[in-house]
Amino acid sequence: MRPIVALVTDFGNAGAYVPQIKGAILSIDSDTRILDLSHTIKTHNIFETSYLVQKASSTLPANSIVCALIDPGVKSERPGIAIQTTSGKIYIGPDNGIFSHVLHKEGLTQAVILDRPEFYYKNPPSPTFPGRDIFGPIAAHLASGTSLSEIGTPVGKLMRIDLKAPTKLGNKITGKIVHVDHLGNMITNIHRTHLPEQFEDKLVKVIFHRRTLTLPLVNTYAAAPKKRLFALVNSDQELEVAIRDSSAAKKLKPRIGESIIFILK
Amino acid sequence: MRPIVALVTDFGNAGAYVPQIKGAILSIDSDTRILDLSHTIKTHNIFETSYLVQKASSTLPANSIVCALIDPGVKSERPGIAIQTTSGKIYIGPDNGIFSHVLHKEGLTQAVILDRPEFYYKNPPSPTFPGRDIFGPIAAHLASGTSLSEIGTPVGKLMRIDLKAPTKLGNKITGKIVHVDHLGNMITNIHRTHLPEQFEDKLVKVIFHRRTLTLPLVNTYAAAPKKRLFALVNSDQELEVAIRDSSAAKKLKPRIGESIIFILK
Amino acid sequence: MRPIVALVTDFGNAGAYVPQIKGAILSIDSDTRILDLSHTIKTHNIFETSYLVQKASSTLPANSIVCALIDPGVKSERPGIAIQTTSGKIYIGPDNGIFSHVLHKEGLTQAVILDRPEFYYKNPPSPTFPGRDIFGPIAAHLASGTSLSEIGTPVGKLMRIDLKAPTKLGNKITGKIVHVDHLGNMITNIHRTHLPEQFEDKLVKVIFHRRTLTLPLVNTYAAAPKKRLFALVNSDQELEVAIRDSSAAKKLKPRIGESIIFILK
Repeated sequence: MRPIVALVTDFGNAGAYVPQIKGAILSIDSDTRILDLSHTIKTHNIFETSYLVQKASSTLPANSIVCALIDPGVKSERPGIAIQTTSGKIYIGPDNGIFSHVLHKEGLTQAVILDRPEFYYKNPPSPTFPGRDIFGPIAAHLASGTSLSEIGTPVGKLMRIDLKAPTKLGNKITGKIVHVDHLGNMITNIHRTHLPEQFEDKLVKVIFHRRTLTLPLVNTYAAAPKKRLFALVNSDQELEVAIRDSSAAKKLKPRIGESIIFILK
Repeated sequence: MRPIVALVTDFGNAGAYVPQIKGAILSIDSDTRILDLSHTIKTHNIFETSYLVQKASSTLPANSIVCALIDPGVKSERPGIAIQTTSGKIYIGPDNGIFSHVLHKEGLTQAVILDRPEFYYKNPPSPTFPGRDIFGPIAAHLASGTSLSEIGTPVGKLMRIDLKAPTKLGNKITGKIVHVDHLGNMITNIHRTHLPEQFEDKLVKVIFHRRTLTLPLVNTYAAAPKKRLFALVNSDQELEVAIRDSSAAKKLKPRIGESIIFILK
Repeated sequence: MRPIVALVTDFGNAGAYVPQIKGAILSIDSDTRILDLSHTIKTHNIFETSYLVQKASSTLPANSIVCALIDPGVKSERPGIAIQTTSGKIYIGPDNGIFSHVLHKEGLTQAVILDRPEFYYKNPPSPTFPGRDIFGPIAAHLASGTSLSEIGTPVGKLMRIDLKAPTKLGNKITGKIVHVDHLGNMITNIHRTHLPEQFEDKLVKVIFHRRTLTLPLVNTYAAAPKKRLFALVNSDQELEVAIRDSSAAKKLKPRIGESIIFILK
């Protein structure tokens, strides 16, 4: 089965940039199956970007090719990379740390630098649009059967950012805010496995911005109180803070990367 | 021909939720043909949602499978459903009334509750993300050839909301505002068939918010006056109130579900 | 290989209009491969629209069919057209000038008026939604193998807008602002070929809004100064004015179509 080329970018839906990337992909092989993941990834830093790239691509089939065209840092001339993880998926994008969560969760199998212009859209590529001129076309070649070792030169060290794993001390877990979703739910890097076996419907103390809140800890929205903050183990087994039918972020004003402490009874 | 799986959701284009649904669908069968209808359905109530689900899916081919993942009410643990209408189309989503307009227009053939975990993305499904764990995967199975009777247990009574049909008394038709589109056009539930055979270029009295307006009734924008309110029979044969190159909604401030009266000479 | 039907519209992502167009296309031939270019083309006038239609479709494969459903002028009953250029691509849309840039860049091979109702979605088509009732269905028929000469009647004269070519006098080039992208970069109609062979890292005088600015002229973002305006030859070889990590448009407040002068040393 021909693999999917899945696009996740921050180019927006309004202009000509995403269209040009899609056109360049199809001009390499017009049979390429393009899947829009998102073109409006809005993140505050490379940490949240890396988190979202992993989350957005987590359920794709094993042979998928993910093009992640997001560079929240300064635009640079760092060479792009393509990496394959033990999941089988291939990820293509800048070597700026945006695959850190993917590499942590899935483990690296192979990585190459995209240094072979014969696989580019045009040669030389424009220095300002690698998404169209390098990353998209490389994805199309890989989807058409070119192997990772043909497409670039093996590379040892990849840029990785510190994922700041949560720490647990007795019944006190210290984590970080990793993302705020479109509903204002505040997602942390604390995983269900950090919690006791039985956690549902207990109370949990949450220390955030020097305030201590006592919140119910539930695992469905239906079990949550109305119009009050609560803690939830979400569909990816992550601990989050939410308000039913409203925005926890509006109330608590979190910044990405801030510490949050949960104390379980 | 392999049927299309058409997605209509309110998850937005920015986060990882729509990507995870698409990934889960493709992980069931990577050949599935996914069609984005809209992921930014913004509605004020279940009535407008039900209206838009019908409108957005009305022109799809007869074998299409529509996943409608919108729950403007409180999130709940009500089981999901899949229904087939006399059009041949299958609709999958929560049993919260969002298929009321579809059922009214197309008529029910068969309905099942999605109670067979062997067709879910994972078992048990997360209690907070049925779009990814149940509805999307069920659509992929149906598109791959699983039949509706295999996929769930037949169900008799479906949730339906009151569609509030317009009433006609002599030349006075009382309807409701069902939707305001992105241009500010105010669409009503009054259909061309409620109007006299010859309606073009007549004047019509419109009573709205206790004001009486006298508007030209036309069937093209080109025939409409400039910068003035007018009534139009639109491309779905619905009566709407609009302003050429401007927003009628900004001027009249309608709420979804409000009454509007048309008196034809 | 079955050609792609690429959609570029201004209907927005929120309502039922884009879904109805896609459904109508698939109802003609459910095998049609639909590609979303953009549904949120926001332009200020027909000139910018024509520019963006060309830019958004420029990298598509030669047998692609582009449906451009944008009418920034008054809605009208002008008949639609389908044109083929020397690139091989076919463009379908209103005859309002939105293909002017495409025709200038690619050259016309054949043009027809879409006057054959047997290829419409329904007959008669609604007078207010040609995208769904005429343009989309025509694209589906062409993608399925119907030829341009079968689909409509040859037409001689097409509506074209004045493209206002830049003028060069000595080292002074006078162009126009053609587009402001989502980052606030101000793109002009001055092309790399209007510049001297060696242009990188020189200073250029820019006269705009009666102010004279002296800007570095570079061809990568990395070479640009921080927090200062600069001139860049972009990935389409166009001269633009930008600020690294900020918006030049916010600072200079350009209007589409305004003159901008570059004086090279």
